[in-house]
Amino acid sequence: MAAIVDILELEQLERNMFRGSVHPTELVRTYGGQVAGQALVSAVRTVDDGYSVHSLHGYFLRPGNPTIPTVYLVDRIRDGRSFVTRRVTGVQNGEAIFTMAASFHIDGDEGIEHQDQMPKVPSAADLEADAQIAETVAERELTREWGSWDLRIVPAEQAAKVDGLAAQQRVWIRYRDRLPDVPILHICALAYLSDMTLIGSARVPHPGVVTQNASLDHAMWFMRPFRADEWLLYDQSSPSAGFGRALTQGRMFDTDGNMVAAVVQEGLQRIMKTAP
Amino acid sequence: MAAIVDILELEQLERNMFRGSVHPTELVRTYGGQVAGQALVSAVRTVDDGYSVHSLHGYFLRPGNPTIPTVYLVDRIRDGRSFVTRRVTGVQNGEAIFTMAASFHIDGDEGIEHQDQMPKVPSAADLEADAQIAETVAERELTREWGSWDLRIVPAEQAAKVDGLAAQQRVWIRYRDRLPDVPILHICALAYLSDMTLIGSARVPHPGVVTQNASLDHAMWFMRPFRADEWLLYDQSSPSAGFGRALTQGRMFDTDGNMVAAVVQEGLQRIMKTAP
Repeated sequence: MAAIVDILELEQLERNMFRGSVHPTELVRTYGGQVAGQALVSAVRTVDDGYSVHSLHGYFLRPGNPTIPTVYLVDRIRDGRSFVTRRVTGVQNGEAIFTMAASFHIDGDEGIEHQDQMPKVPSAADLEADAQIAETVAERELTREWGSWDLRIVPAEQAAKVDGLAAQQRVWIRYRDRLPDVPILHICALAYLSDMTLIGSARVPHPGVVTQNASLDHAMWFMRPFRADEWLLYDQSSPSAGFGRALTQGRMFDTDGNMVAAVVQEGLQRIMKTAP
Repeated sequence: MAAIVDILELEQLERNMFRGSVHPTELVRTYGGQVAGQALVSAVRTVDDGYSVHSLHGYFLRPGNPTIPTVYLVDRIRDGRSFVTRRVTGVQNGEAIFTMAASFHIDGDEGIEHQDQMPKVPSAADLEADAQIAETVAERELTREWGSWDLRIVPAEQAAKVDGLAAQQRVWIRYRDRLPDVPILHICALAYLSDMTLIGSARVPHPGVVTQNASLDHAMWFMRPFRADEWLLYDQSSPSAGFGRALTQGRMFDTDGNMVAAVVQEGLQRIMKTAP
């Protein structure tokens, strides 16, 4: 159970090349959020101050081996005046396990302003802590592997459902320890945590069905400042599932109701067939 | 006003290299949907039958010049058993104007099944045709540049709003002429049309505000079979806008209510300042 600041600490091998560290884990494959988070750190380290990341789009190509480091190769595909774009390839054993592009926007731009309202849910403090989560999420590793994160699933009967949506789930989440006052660290930490629980929203309408799960892609947009060590509501839904895949999406709000980020992820959701 | 089949017809220069054709246009910059559609065709032409594209993620890097062809370089980053991934770079004058990754899934996979309900709106036939659209969308080029597409905006007062969403817009769309019975052509045509009207959903709550607009990224997921020459409801919303950018998203349904695709796009939405 490594600290997030250590997971996101990379060694610079060359100007555009970084190596992730290896940490004890109980997972047999590298956690997708770790790969996305480290890839984002790599991109950030090649971009000048004065530009902030506002989005990323990644594909998970092959399962990562968590016992060996991942090397991240950064391609400085565009250095514009208002926008800077980076492509990052995560490599293990000579093969790409992850490909991502991330875009940075010059600070201080202005435009139209609006945002969705935060859904009405009980506060994190009003929900029971971790005890019931392992059972609810049906992912036992959650509490052990990610014990540094306080995750509280809002019971379905305590949250208003939006009519017509096929699958909905709300989760409060925050990092337990205080993090340094470095905004980009909170953003990369959010990339790390955003791959937890999201794909599970697709299974909400299918209780008891056992599926083979894997994250296929991962896209994020960062809209407003936030802290990953303060409560964030992760409002998740799955608009569609079929043909072995499920689309999931999430909006993140701080406790003041500010929408701070959005996430979309498609995942493999094959039904496991038992041997005859 | 070129036919979509001609716009999506590319010349193969080398095994992994394609060149887009040039067509008369009134736009001063290459339309983003054309770049995304042609990039997707390039990727498709390097993937074996038996795999179908299920998602793409692209970034618009530089404005394209519509009077010269774009060359698309395809990187066969992964050929897996179940999934195949391609990266495509669109180039003009030695510079990348577009970068995209697309993923293909083997046909015939099975998993859990669900989808959101189609919102209740008047049918396309019940709406007035094009006459009012130019005015409604406030983009005069729409009817001339994209006259091959029948676009009908659902008047806001005729569609039920979802509580709490900041900006909503619904558009019926179909290609006017019959297209060949080639599913991938309909998918690439959808990529082309998906960049029309979506970013406009962000301006719905800001009538009269003049903004500088540009598509920044573009992501799509293809869930179920459909035809681009039959009516599709493009249900759009903009969950957030600020700092000069707006996030927009859309779900596409056929007239039977099947959710066939999803789109997410962030766009520049700077407020234009008049000279002092």
